[in-house]
Amino acid sequence: MIYFDNAATTFFKPKEVIDAVTATLTASFNSNRGAGGRKAASSVFDTRQNVADLVNCDPTRVIFCAGCTAAINAALIGGNRYGGHVITTVFEHNSVIRPLKEMERKGVISLTILKPNNDGYITEEIIERSLRPNTYMAVFSHVSNVTGRAQNIEKIGETLKKHGIKFVVDGAQSIGYLPIDMKKCNIDALCFPAHKGLHAPQGLGLMCLGNDFNPTPTCFGGTGSDSKNLYQPDFLPDKYESGTLNHPAIAGLNAAINWWQNSKNERLQKIKKIQSYLHEKIEKLPNVVLYSSKNDSGIISFAVIERDSNEIGDILFDEYEIATRAGLHCAPLTHEYLHTIENGLIRISLSAENTIDECDIFINALTKIIEK
Amino acid sequence: MIYFDNAATTFFKPKEVIDAVTATLTASFNSNRGAGGRKAASSVFDTRQNVADLVNCDPTRVIFCAGCTAAINAALIGGNRYGGHVITTVFEHNSVIRPLKEMERKGVISLTILKPNNDGYITEEIIERSLRPNTYMAVFSHVSNVTGRAQNIEKIGETLKKHGIKFVVDGAQSIGYLPIDMKKCNIDALCFPAHKGLHAPQGLGLMCLGNDFNPTPTCFGGTGSDSKNLYQPDFLPDKYESGTLNHPAIAGLNAAINWWQNSKNERLQKIKKIQSYLHEKIEKLPNVVLYSSKNDSGIISFAVIERDSNEIGDILFDEYEIATRAGLHCAPLTHEYLHTIENGLIRISLSAENTIDECDIFINALTKIIEK
Repeated sequence: MIYFDNAATTFFKPKEVIDAVTATLTASFNSNRGAGGRKAASSVFDTRQNVADLVNCDPTRVIFCAGCTAAINAALIGGNRYGGHVITTVFEHNSVIRPLKEMERKGVISLTILKPNNDGYITEEIIERSLRPNTYMAVFSHVSNVTGRAQNIEKIGETLKKHGIKFVVDGAQSIGYLPIDMKKCNIDALCFPAHKGLHAPQGLGLMCLGNDFNPTPTCFGGTGSDSKNLYQPDFLPDKYESGTLNHPAIAGLNAAINWWQNSKNERLQKIKKIQSYLHEKIEKLPNVVLYSSKNDSGIISFAVIERDSNEIGDILFDEYEIATRAGLHCAPLTHEYLHTIENGLIRISLSAENTIDECDIFINALTKIIEK
Repeated sequence: MIYFDNAATTFFKPKEVIDAVTATLTASFNSNRGAGGRKAASSVFDTRQNVADLVNCDPTRVIFCAGCTAAINAALIGGNRYGGHVITTVFEHNSVIRPLKEMERKGVISLTILKPNNDGYITEEIIERSLRPNTYMAVFSHVSNVTGRAQNIEKIGETLKKHGIKFVVDGAQSIGYLPIDMKKCNIDALCFPAHKGLHAPQGLGLMCLGNDFNPTPTCFGGTGSDSKNLYQPDFLPDKYESGTLNHPAIAGLNAAINWWQNSKNERLQKIKKIQSYLHEKIEKLPNVVLYSSKNDSGIISFAVIERDSNEIGDILFDEYEIATRAGLHCAPLTHEYLHTIENGLIRISLSAENTIDECDIFINALTKIIEK
């Protein structure tokens, strides 16, 4: 099988990650619970430090969540200022759009969804035009999961800071592909999953908080701390982490970050090279329209004129054993903006495990499908 | 090391479970996302069916959550009827108490916390005395994580049904130890973790819903379904499951349930036998007060007169390498009720991996500590 759906989940997990997960299952302690849990707690803290170093934030402000979606919900729902105005963009995944639309429907926020300029970028001017006196939060994806385009989050962060607006970034498709510096970009909450570009297990997401953003907790329970207190403790990370942590995935993430730091230069170069190769090949195919540019996130999206993307995705998988992701990619507003809502797009998303040979096999397969 | 803290997390995970987790990491698909995700989706559905068979509910009403705490929060916050009255008990863990106290503090519910009769049971009479015209929900733990005592949930469910009150059960300490039949007990939401009595990985909890209980979702995002819809889909399980599922833990749970079903008779007998042995031994020690009776959940709790439990727990771990759980066990109201809030209790919680030899080593160690 050729796996071209790494933006959904990276197929390859390094041996170091699998070993770290297995080690926690071979001797299962409960972090921060009882004397035996101290070792697990220290391994969990190591991971916090590793994540903090990766994105430049305080380790006690690294919050483990069930996934990137849970992290985004915790930031948006927990960060809500009743009656305020939130801005976001057409490039958002349903993990951002659905909580915001729900909040809008309940009447607790008003919502503006920004379209980019003709080059696909959300500029300072576009942001400033949308602001209202009660705008308190902006939610932006760093990289679109459909087009692979990265927004200039440093510039956006600067603009938002000028207006005192909290900046929540969905890093789902950029973490592990592009550097993110929370302090440099004035990010108040950076949310990302473990299981994509970092090659760690599924079931874990991060909400990394800037020093001036303290959402209200949205989940309450035992923390192994301050147990006499019938209310959630107010100190971090316990304020936002109730119940037993996903220690296997946390240990896996720690190993994954170490592995990634050691191999990233070579890997990112390879992804860039293959993305570029495939981009050029697909560009030349008849009846194919590309919706992505050359990019560092390994994403290529295209449509075949007058063909349903899901049909083509199914043929690629069933007849050629090539796993792509066809359809709307949980990003309906992006597809509306691109006018691809009807037939969707076929998305290829690469990892450094992919090869030029696989690209050639894919191009041959796609050529045959188009000719049919 | 002797591990006596299985109520926090069972230390032992069967080879079948570790193999199932490893298999998902060796070939990581994203359930329900893209053509390649169909295989993962089918493995996830198998687990739903397996859980449904275990507790007697509909498989589409088996909801995967980040843990038992997240499951309880989803049921309590999602099931909230604004301004209504909720009853619960002194035996609840902070995973129940903290969300309820938070809801009470916000003024969205009023709350009554029931004390048991002299035998430690919450009876029909106690429940009925507490009811108000607007009582809409009751939240009960099946087995206390401090005393190991099981409430009669069948009788309680019958009483609640008579009054049209939703019945939420925290099965954290009973799943894998006692049978639970949701239909027979009229349970509307049964919440339990994967990582305790079922010996599956941490990071996964279940909210199993009865057919007449449909909480409002509390987390929103991509479901890989109905992607054009900017709001959360209304069908189950997608209504309650946003974002990438914890496939490694779900596959692990499936293997764990199969393993547990095959070995439960022998294992539960062994736990009962060791619990009883240890109970009788501890009962005879001078200056020790037992707070648990003989039970099927493998829990034994005791205090040493005029000694701090945390100190004794630390000595047991540091000097004898025996992991127990000392303190308040995230259940402050239980300790208030037992008058043990000051010094806490030492809790032993067994699994079938423990042995009579380990019990004898423990008794020798405890005897020496008491004599000091």
